[in-house]
Amino acid sequence: MRAEKLDAADELRGKRDAFVLDDVVYLDGNSLGALPAVVPGRVEDVVRRQWGELRIRSWEESGWWTAPERIGDRIAPLVGAAPGQIVVGDSTSVNVFKALVGAVRMAGEGRDEILVDATTFPTDGYIAESAARMTGCTLRPVAPADVPGALGDRTAAVLLNHVDYRTGRLHDLPALTAAAHGAGAYAVWDLCHSAGALPVGLDEHGVDLAVGCTYKYLNGGPGSPAYLYVRRELQDRFDSPLPGWNSHAEPFGMRSGYEPAPGALRGRVGTPDILSMLALEAALEVWDGVPVEAVRAKSLALTDFFLECVAEYVPEGRVECLTPVPHAERGSQIALRCDDAGDVMKRLVEQGVVGDFRAPDVLRFGFTPLYVGFADVERAARVLAQTLG
Amino acid sequence: MRAEKLDAADELRGKRDAFVLDDVVYLDGNSLGALPAVVPGRVEDVVRRQWGELRIRSWEESGWWTAPERIGDRIAPLVGAAPGQIVVGDSTSVNVFKALVGAVRMAGEGRDEILVDATTFPTDGYIAESAARMTGCTLRPVAPADVPGALGDRTAAVLLNHVDYRTGRLHDLPALTAAAHGAGAYAVWDLCHSAGALPVGLDEHGVDLAVGCTYKYLNGGPGSPAYLYVRRELQDRFDSPLPGWNSHAEPFGMRSGYEPAPGALRGRVGTPDILSMLALEAALEVWDGVPVEAVRAKSLALTDFFLECVAEYVPEGRVECLTPVPHAERGSQIALRCDDAGDVMKRLVEQGVVGDFRAPDVLRFGFTPLYVGFADVERAARVLAQTLG
Repeated sequence: MRAEKLDAADELRGKRDAFVLDDVVYLDGNSLGALPAVVPGRVEDVVRRQWGELRIRSWEESGWWTAPERIGDRIAPLVGAAPGQIVVGDSTSVNVFKALVGAVRMAGEGRDEILVDATTFPTDGYIAESAARMTGCTLRPVAPADVPGALGDRTAAVLLNHVDYRTGRLHDLPALTAAAHGAGAYAVWDLCHSAGALPVGLDEHGVDLAVGCTYKYLNGGPGSPAYLYVRRELQDRFDSPLPGWNSHAEPFGMRSGYEPAPGALRGRVGTPDILSMLALEAALEVWDGVPVEAVRAKSLALTDFFLECVAEYVPEGRVECLTPVPHAERGSQIALRCDDAGDVMKRLVEQGVVGDFRAPDVLRFGFTPLYVGFADVERAARVLAQTLG
Repeated sequence: MRAEKLDAADELRGKRDAFVLDDVVYLDGNSLGALPAVVPGRVEDVVRRQWGELRIRSWEESGWWTAPERIGDRIAPLVGAAPGQIVVGDSTSVNVFKALVGAVRMAGEGRDEILVDATTFPTDGYIAESAARMTGCTLRPVAPADVPGALGDRTAAVLLNHVDYRTGRLHDLPALTAAAHGAGAYAVWDLCHSAGALPVGLDEHGVDLAVGCTYKYLNGGPGSPAYLYVRRELQDRFDSPLPGWNSHAEPFGMRSGYEPAPGALRGRVGTPDILSMLALEAALEVWDGVPVEAVRAKSLALTDFFLECVAEYVPEGRVECLTPVPHAERGSQIALRCDDAGDVMKRLVEQGVVGDFRAPDVLRFGFTPLYVGFADVERAARVLAQTLG
């Protein structure tokens, strides 16, 4: 009854029809977003007509060449960025490398330390280690809360996750960015688990560089290209470690000397991956007319409701919630710990409730406000309770 | 008449039906290969069923996770490599960076110079400059023919193109690789303009590392992912500058310490771009039963015939052929120089003969043996002659 009322009052309810869904409760959109209904037709057009019929002409006529910056501008409002600061392309890992090396080069001599979120998704840490090694820096892992105290006059850059992939904890982007700036360091944010789920405010909070994937809350498809944000005022100083020909001021001049393009284009590298990129472009159409604030409000309502249902249905002590209860510290997922999490998730999936398992003992449930409803939440909690026994 | 006879005797003639073609003479497959007929249906299945219905389960059930190495093994026989040495992913530029930095690290201390093909496709030169800068090396551009004389005991690596993108000149991979080895340096080859057009023989000739794109003669689609070859004996020493989580020995262990996977997997970086990658996998099916030697024989016959027709139809002196006449020095394209090349190519395209223009004065015609026939060649030469006036 409670779920029905919440669903009836949900302004975003109609958006569910923009996705291909079935009777599964899909709470894994924080790993791979569901298929937007507009995508298959668009991809077919890209393959059959743009590639199959127009062939090479499509680089110009179908707008292939300018896709990275065009789609970047489509993502921009979702992360609070004005146009001209984001390019799409490459994987998140590759973009972390560009962003961190770029930040260290901006910081200049005398700053030879990179701080990295000690609880980061592993790839960010591995790539940060490589960026540090290749720029003569040392890498120091620090819990995000300890970053302000760890910053110093040797800190070149700080790499942080906006939302922790495991616990779903939302970190304080405005305060941590301000702290980095206070120490003269550059703030690099990984938005994989926040973009499309909550307001980010890159421009408003003066974030320097940011990266993110597009296959979670942005529903771009498996392995769809990631993006790189470089704040406008820093673009002239952004010195990419991957200066591919797509980032050249005159790419078709075929000149042997490298001269970087102005603006966000400087973040491009090689030839863009058109099929995946244009599938993402189509997927982003579901955001038309959707204010990210409404998404955030629903996301919190969904996770609140899930926590309530779990508290009501699941015997106390059977699971431990790793996700913070205060809204200001919560992303759009709930992580529950229990010793038999791997087995529990297997049984949940068999019963049509799809979340994921993170070794060794975490059940992760992601709530995508565009297509998850309150009845889904209640059903998930009931099935979870039955499964936990 | 001559063309008809050649077409009738062409063993690869039937392969044309494996592609979506029209009445255009498409001589730009060295830029973007034509659409293989099997691709649209496969892509539709990947989008609608694998992503749309199975969603997250497809990482395992649809073989998404292992696609980079599986498709690498599909490319391997085309470039003369045994299985387990190639992974697909990222752009050519990104793979050049991995390969060159990897080579310099293998070379070790005391070797601080990288030689690069002075006539290279620009991105290789830009990326080589970055690799040199980030590993403390100097970069020296050298004409490929001068490489043997330029090699020394400080040379760490040599980056060369198997076929020159502009002139279509085929460089002597066996001899230049042997020369690099003779000086104790590592040979890194860019196969963009040779793979799928002629035998490469990576294993046979002891090439150390190689990269290539898949959207030219391999017909993978616009911006389809590139590949990286690391010779088996060197894999344990391959130390990637982009150690993303996909290259970890235990990627789902989510460990903070990096431990590289054994084998070719070490060349992976981030989450693979599945739509583009599986389109490529389908595209590679057209190679079933096609020996690359047959492709090479037809390629030479096509370019020989084009040169004959041009000599016959085009007034002497109107164009200058930049492509070497000896077979041993010719790839699968013909480059003709004339002052008004930009305008000429525009008019050729209007008349249904599609090649491309490379600034400032080159007409480039690529011959893809799987779908270009001898009648196409004759028609192209006739239209060219009329256009040149």
